[in-house]
Amino acid sequence: MGVIDQTTCPVKTGSIYPSPYKEMMAGRSSLRLGDAGGLTQFGANLVILQSGAMSSLRHWHQNEDEFVMGVQGICTLVQDEGATDLHPGDCAAFKAGDPNGHHFQNRTKAEARFLVVGFRAATEVATYSDVDFRIEQSGGVNTFTHRDGTAWEGHR
Amino acid sequence: MGVIDQTTCPVKTGSIYPSPYKEMMAGRSSLRLGDAGGLTQFGANLVILQSGAMSSLRHWHQNEDEFVMGVQGICTLVQDEGATDLHPGDCAAFKAGDPNGHHFQNRTKAEARFLVVGFRAATEVATYSDVDFRIEQSGGVNTFTHRDGTAWEGHR
Repeated sequence: MGVIDQTTCPVKTGSIYPSPYKEMMAGRSSLRLGDAGGLTQFGANLVILQSGAMSSLRHWHQNEDEFVMGVQGICTLVQDEGATDLHPGDCAAFKAGDPNGHHFQNRTKAEARFLVVGFRAATEVATYSDVDFRIEQSGGVNTFTHRDGTAWEGHR
Repeated sequence: MGVIDQTTCPVKTGSIYPSPYKEMMAGRSSLRLGDAGGLTQFGANLVILQSGAMSSLRHWHQNEDEFVMGVQGICTLVQDEGATDLHPGDCAAFKAGDPNGHHFQNRTKAEARFLVVGFRAATEVATYSDVDFRIEQSGGVNTFTHRDGTAWEGHR
């Protein structure tokens, strides 16, 4: 491989979240650049946020390091301590196991983009900071639970 | 962690290569962004190339996937099939085990920068495409050899 053709790179839309969370991801899409380049050890995705969109629910990963670089427009990082604007070239890191949840919002009127790289662990738990929701991932299967580990039965 | 302060991020200069290869890396430096952010599962470095500099000897990795995004100026990717210019936002991928060696050159008069992400395998072999040289990495120790595995005794 070498240079990745971004004009033919598949665009991922939608969300693996159950309702009512998946509807909150409207206006977000991503180019799976690493997958298009044949990479398997980590994901490298260009996340595209329309005005008003968010990258995900605010969350943290148990097993997977995550790295972000701003590419276009302003992506606002929200963590426990508040909001910080990420401009093109600005970078952020989220160490696996750090329970300070994060996500990005596009609070501007223009499209915003960032590159996100995430390690691919054999098993993973994503915990969502602002709702009673977790996703356990193992063997390609996503299991939705509440924070206490019980099966997810809807927003509560 | 969150946003990485690039103004205080340590700048790496120099090279682990033996002479005469290390002298060929003049004009190259990098910011260890992932390390500054506490990440360990992959490296994320901003490589800065002065006019005329190269990122490394042309090489390929046995065990480690690699991903690159152009950030500033023009970084010229050189592989077996020739040269391709990488502009800001352009991306490239190099799958572990693919023996098509790569490196980046700054053929312009202006500074050029790219982000490189590399998986961190327990052991690694980097093979250099244009010289009779390899580096075996294990337990934080670098061993220089010729391509036939014999101890490196200088450029031949």
